[in-house]
Amino acid sequence: MKPAIVIVDMLKDAFKGKDPSAIEEYGKIVPRIRDLLGRARMLNIPIIFACDSFLEKDFIFKGKRSYSVRGTEGAEVIDEFQPIRKDEILLKRRFSAFFKTDLDQTLRLFGVDTVVITGINTQVCVYATAMDSVCHDFYTIVLEDCTASRNREVHQGSIGVLRQCGLSPLLRVMSSEEFLEEAAHQTA
Amino acid sequence: MKPAIVIVDMLKDAFKGKDPSAIEEYGKIVPRIRDLLGRARMLNIPIIFACDSFLEKDFIFKGKRSYSVRGTEGAEVIDEFQPIRKDEILLKRRFSAFFKTDLDQTLRLFGVDTVVITGINTQVCVYATAMDSVCHDFYTIVLEDCTASRNREVHQGSIGVLRQCGLSPLLRVMSSEEFLEEAAHQTA
Amino acid sequence: MKPAIVIVDMLKDAFKGKDPSAIEEYGKIVPRIRDLLGRARMLNIPIIFACDSFLEKDFIFKGKRSYSVRGTEGAEVIDEFQPIRKDEILLKRRFSAFFKTDLDQTLRLFGVDTVVITGINTQVCVYATAMDSVCHDFYTIVLEDCTASRNREVHQGSIGVLRQCGLSPLLRVMSSEEFLEEAAHQTA
Amino acid sequence: MKPAIVIVDMLKDAFKGKDPSAIEEYGKIVPRIRDLLGRARMLNIPIIFACDSFLEKDFIFKGKRSYSVRGTEGAEVIDEFQPIRKDEILLKRRFSAFFKTDLDQTLRLFGVDTVVITGINTQVCVYATAMDSVCHDFYTIVLEDCTASRNREVHQGSIGVLRQCGLSPLLRVMSSEEFLEEAAHQTA
Repeated sequence: MKPAIVIVDMLKDAFKGKDPSAIEEYGKIVPRIRDLLGRARMLNIPIIFACDSFLEKDFIFKGKRSYSVRGTEGAEVIDEFQPIRKDEILLKRRFSAFFKTDLDQTLRLFGVDTVVITGINTQVCVYATAMDSVCHDFYTIVLEDCTASRNREVHQGSIGVLRQCGLSPLLRVMSSEEFLEEAAHQTA
Repeated sequence: MKPAIVIVDMLKDAFKGKDPSAIEEYGKIVPRIRDLLGRARMLNIPIIFACDSFLEKDFIFKGKRSYSVRGTEGAEVIDEFQPIRKDEILLKRRFSAFFKTDLDQTLRLFGVDTVVITGINTQVCVYATAMDSVCHDFYTIVLEDCTASRNREVHQGSIGVLRQCGLSPLLRVMSSEEFLEEAAHQTA
Repeated sequence: MKPAIVIVDMLKDAFKGKDPSAIEEYGKIVPRIRDLLGRARMLNIPIIFACDSFLEKDFIFKGKRSYSVRGTEGAEVIDEFQPIRKDEILLKRRFSAFFKTDLDQTLRLFGVDTVVITGINTQVCVYATAMDSVCHDFYTIVLEDCTASRNREVHQGSIGVLRQCGLSPLLRVMSSEEFLEEAAHQTA
Repeated sequence: MKPAIVIVDMLKDAFKGKDPSAIEEYGKIVPRIRDLLGRARMLNIPIIFACDSFLEKDFIFKGKRSYSVRGTEGAEVIDEFQPIRKDEILLKRRFSAFFKTDLDQTLRLFGVDTVVITGINTQVCVYATAMDSVCHDFYTIVLEDCTASRNREVHQGSIGVLRQCGLSPLLRVMSSEEFLEEAAHQTA
């Protein structure tokens, strides 16, 4: 296994919304992802921050207030994660981290065969990134304890569907502990 | 509303599997989609058959028997739908009908603003097509009574997640009846 | 070297135009490509026919008569080449054989590292395919005696520019004889 | 006409090479592009800086010293052009400004129908961007006095081929003066 970790949309604007329960859900995974990143760095696993980077008038804001706008502070990775120079910051324009980006090429350059997905929201950007990852011929792992949705029920529903989606072993749902154990074994 | 209907993977091989309950689930939506196509043609709604068209050794078949292989009979649209000359037959290599295809360009050429998704499986190809459709700036409708999964529970789970995914009104779940009514009103 | 040969737009409609000098230019490369294909098949080199497959009202026909329209006889590979079952027929919507197609994925699946380009027109579809091929991380060879333009001067101008473009050794211009010699040596 | 101007690879590293004649060629177009940008801003024409942003070990550096590496000063737009906040800075991984980027979506969002290309090198990144621009259904103009190659002969060869490539009126070669006149008339 030659994994890379993709952190989807853990951006400042996500924590500035008006829905306290969403912020609580997102907040729960912050220390877990931080812990994961620390241990992944010790295993030399590449880390990619995939970040919404919208334009003000983008279609997806029809009838909504815009957020994570390119060039604004709200579109930056949250301070808790402190990306380091080796990490990749990947600006994305839509949901999937592969949509109109060079992520597939970067992963191949790094010799990655397994994409490990964390971040928010499970049912949209995480889900779309997971589907695209398999489509680009990468083994794909969604970490259930490092992904979240605005709403716990939707997170659990998405994880349930992914678990039974029939794509195993190409796509698997795991805990971060299970992943780190598997990664440590296979790179040992 | 200027809709197009995308029928995902309603191919002969889907009905040749060894799992009778999957075939039963898929079978339920055949007459509903056929009815939808008949009424859509009367409204001059463009129809696109998005069809898996894999290569024998594709990554997604790791550890699995291949199916819907390019050039084989199993990769053809089922006889019940009888595509007509005006319909588009779109060969796709992976899950989403937009992945490495020209579907976005075709839809823009046709002046389409709304993509209506039917077919199988709800949790993979339908879901991935729905996400990509929004990402390509199309209003997107998933028809719950014209989509199916190998397993009823997974279908319902996926529909439940899509319904609550937070992308409305860009992405909506509807019945075919509701869609046809809306389409008839808006093109009248 | 693990090459694949891409034959660009050698389609029936190209030989039905009203410009006799274009047809003469295109005609010159037919026996050369046929010879190349015969020898390439003996070396088990994969062969991909990349074929224009336009829609009637496509943007690129603004103010022009359409040609190579999807589903018409004119969009078929010329009879002289007789594609065999192992060959790939790749329908493309625009100039480059990689544009909104799955060619990159197919080439990686085949383990190809070098794309060898033949066909018409040198300054548009051949040139665009060559650029995209390098961009997708393939060594790229344009065969000067197996490519042609409507007009000899434009062909020679394009080949001259490609020869001096500064991308060697990633992109090289060769004769088919030189390529076959190199391929025979390296696969021997 | 609703144009946007794309400035390709006018980056600091281009002016740090060891080939004085290349730097001279590139230098000639700097004041012309600066003048164009000033006048374009008065006409409210959107401006996109498309900038090489490579990874250190990218395929295209096989056997070559790397340059324009992501995150380095050499990959920044030259000081003479001083991008303003309204301008788009588009990081690209390969030649064409459309390759694995969201440029097509940005241009459609802006309502652009005509892409005007300037920058370096005419035979590679400018040429590939021009081809892709037509393929994405934009009228395309290459400004011959605002594009350059390492070598004057290659620039002129490329411009000659583009002029005769047969894609007019979708793809045209013009001077910046001719373009500005046409733009002023059509937006008047």
